[in-house]
Amino acid sequence: MVNIAVMGHGVVGSGVVEVFYKNKASIEKKAGTQMDIKYILDLRDFPELSYHDKFIKDFEKIIADDSIKVVVEVMGGIHPAYDYAVRCLKNKKSVVTSNKELVATKGAELLRLAKENDVNFLFEASVGGGIPIIRPLHQCLGANDIYEIAGILNGTTNFILTKMIREQMHFEDALALAQKLGYAERDPSADIDGLDACRKICILASLAFGEHVYPNEVYTEGIRQITREDVEYAANWGGAIKLIGSAKVVDGGKLDVMVAPRFVPSSQQLSSVDDVFNAILVRGDATGDVVFYGKGAGKLPTASAVVADIIDAVRANGTIGSLWWQDTGKGQVIAHENSVSAYYVRVMCGDIQAQFHISSLFGNVDYLSRMNKPVDEYAFITHALSEAEMDECVQKLAGWGFKVLGKVRIFEE
Amino acid sequence: MVNIAVMGHGVVGSGVVEVFYKNKASIEKKAGTQMDIKYILDLRDFPELSYHDKFIKDFEKIIADDSIKVVVEVMGGIHPAYDYAVRCLKNKKSVVTSNKELVATKGAELLRLAKENDVNFLFEASVGGGIPIIRPLHQCLGANDIYEIAGILNGTTNFILTKMIREQMHFEDALALAQKLGYAERDPSADIDGLDACRKICILASLAFGEHVYPNEVYTEGIRQITREDVEYAANWGGAIKLIGSAKVVDGGKLDVMVAPRFVPSSQQLSSVDDVFNAILVRGDATGDVVFYGKGAGKLPTASAVVADIIDAVRANGTIGSLWWQDTGKGQVIAHENSVSAYYVRVMCGDIQAQFHISSLFGNVDYLSRMNKPVDEYAFITHALSEAEMDECVQKLAGWGFKVLGKVRIFEE
Repeated sequence: MVNIAVMGHGVVGSGVVEVFYKNKASIEKKAGTQMDIKYILDLRDFPELSYHDKFIKDFEKIIADDSIKVVVEVMGGIHPAYDYAVRCLKNKKSVVTSNKELVATKGAELLRLAKENDVNFLFEASVGGGIPIIRPLHQCLGANDIYEIAGILNGTTNFILTKMIREQMHFEDALALAQKLGYAERDPSADIDGLDACRKICILASLAFGEHVYPNEVYTEGIRQITREDVEYAANWGGAIKLIGSAKVVDGGKLDVMVAPRFVPSSQQLSSVDDVFNAILVRGDATGDVVFYGKGAGKLPTASAVVADIIDAVRANGTIGSLWWQDTGKGQVIAHENSVSAYYVRVMCGDIQAQFHISSLFGNVDYLSRMNKPVDEYAFITHALSEAEMDECVQKLAGWGFKVLGKVRIFEE
Repeated sequence: MVNIAVMGHGVVGSGVVEVFYKNKASIEKKAGTQMDIKYILDLRDFPELSYHDKFIKDFEKIIADDSIKVVVEVMGGIHPAYDYAVRCLKNKKSVVTSNKELVATKGAELLRLAKENDVNFLFEASVGGGIPIIRPLHQCLGANDIYEIAGILNGTTNFILTKMIREQMHFEDALALAQKLGYAERDPSADIDGLDACRKICILASLAFGEHVYPNEVYTEGIRQITREDVEYAANWGGAIKLIGSAKVVDGGKLDVMVAPRFVPSSQQLSSVDDVFNAILVRGDATGDVVFYGKGAGKLPTASAVVADIIDAVRANGTIGSLWWQDTGKGQVIAHENSVSAYYVRVMCGDIQAQFHISSLFGNVDYLSRMNKPVDEYAFITHALSEAEMDECVQKLAGWGFKVLGKVRIFEE
């Protein structure tokens, strides 16, 4: 018999309780033991719930109870989640979390603490909701040298971009619709400015490459500046604009990690991932491209990932060794200015010499077209160049009287 | 230190040796112990190979050597693979295989033997090549009640259908191209008649639903009869024809398991899986739709799945309980005539009453069109009806002088 405590009874927490009791028989069969949720920690009371007697307000009760082997942290935020997780691990209780901020900023430390105490720190639900990605990444793809991970990691932005693509909506209107449907918060910044995707790519990169990648090391660009015109040019180019979190190994073994909108060619599976769906592409030397697709958020998908982790934590005999990264203090992320991409650029310029200027900067470029393109508008795809070189080019264009209206990196096939 | 034996040095076997030695350091780190391949069993000699001294011809050497903890079976076929697997398991050696025929026909027995001997029988490579699917299915999706699995499980047929769709090739020409490129065997029957896909859906269904589904219980239809006209109608309908292996829970808890070409709507991710790629859709009550996509075959993808299983076998402490199904003798597959689908039907009939006859059989149907459709050709989508009802309808149509030119089931969203 194993007892579990759930910290936080919000959307995910209540989903965990629901999924646990709904499928309790098959969950216990898979875990190989009887299990129960003994405590639910929340500041609020829920007298209307059938399981209201499980609620507690004092975290110390969880620590003091030796029958609690697994603690589920679904409160969100760093405080007090971080302190609670530390104390649970030090008291030899495995911690299962859906808290991406916690994992992205404190993962290396919590993994080390879990190992020192022969328990587990598990976080399948922190990336991709119900899509199994953390476990396949360290376990199933264990025989691969992974050299790139890239994904559509945020459902809100993908919903907005899908509306801009399919229904020619403006960004502001698509955002308002997402808010109306409950896909976006009233303050949508964490989603649309890329912070949520940034935390997720940090977790994936840390796990795939073994060294902690922190959110503040990652250049992050959201989708606020994407226009209908950019979307239209992307379609004519043969693809779609997606917000991509990516981490890839570059020369010298360092990592190029970034969150930014990108032109994704339609031959690439990620281009057809629409609405609130997420997808994660993993590129390994032996496996080739593998894509994991599904709902990246939502109460039940996320809760089911948490429950799968609970099963693993119960079943595990000591720390699962392959789920591991560390902070050696060396850092592995290259400086942003050295990152290299091809670009889509959209400029406006009345100068009759415009194309001559463009060629002088970028050499031969592929010009794109769109319906009703003004004669003084130019959109084109550059060859690959570094962020520093691109910044320089943009300055030169401005000096020559160009107005830079759009600039989106190309996703490399 | 753990020793491994590899039985069979064909495409997959040589790939296993290659991947193992290429990534040995990271594999050992993940497994938590030093490892080596001690024997390779093959009837042939490979004097040119640097590791030629590992080759043996006598299986008994593997059984007699207590240092061998994991045996990789990549010979294919049932004999002697089955007998060897049984003897390895009985001698407390874990068996890792890529042999779908072995798993689909003997899985329940081999899983039971593994459990009785406290070792593992693992087969990630038997479905989906390098796509992680077996482990996510029993482990990550453990908190779900899965109610349907459907997939594009055979790369050869998907390549042929892609050529028919994209380049308007005839089936015979696309098959000849697949053979030229090495994607299809000289005798392509196992692929194009659906046998390979059948074995794979048997494995997935057995694992997801816990009761062994045998290939001879599964109605299997290949793609030989698919024409360019069918492909064209599918496009006008808003989708594509794919060979789908599927297993879904129907009323009463039994399973409807089938391999057949289907019209897949373009809103469904499986419709955009092209060329030799595979994809597997898993539908769970909590997770919703999850899709796993990647190369379903090939030396290195398959070998990397085998090596991931080797790591798991080495690391496991006893039998992995969640990887399990049994043969209770009850059978869980419904009779084929009770399976229900909507249909695309293409008929030819000179009778002026043709549409009247069609309505009398199927009620209101949605008619489809194509370029240069002969006036006496009718293509339409029916409502859902059972296989038995459909057979009756086809007989009636024939009786009225209709020629049934095409008939493809619709994939239910």
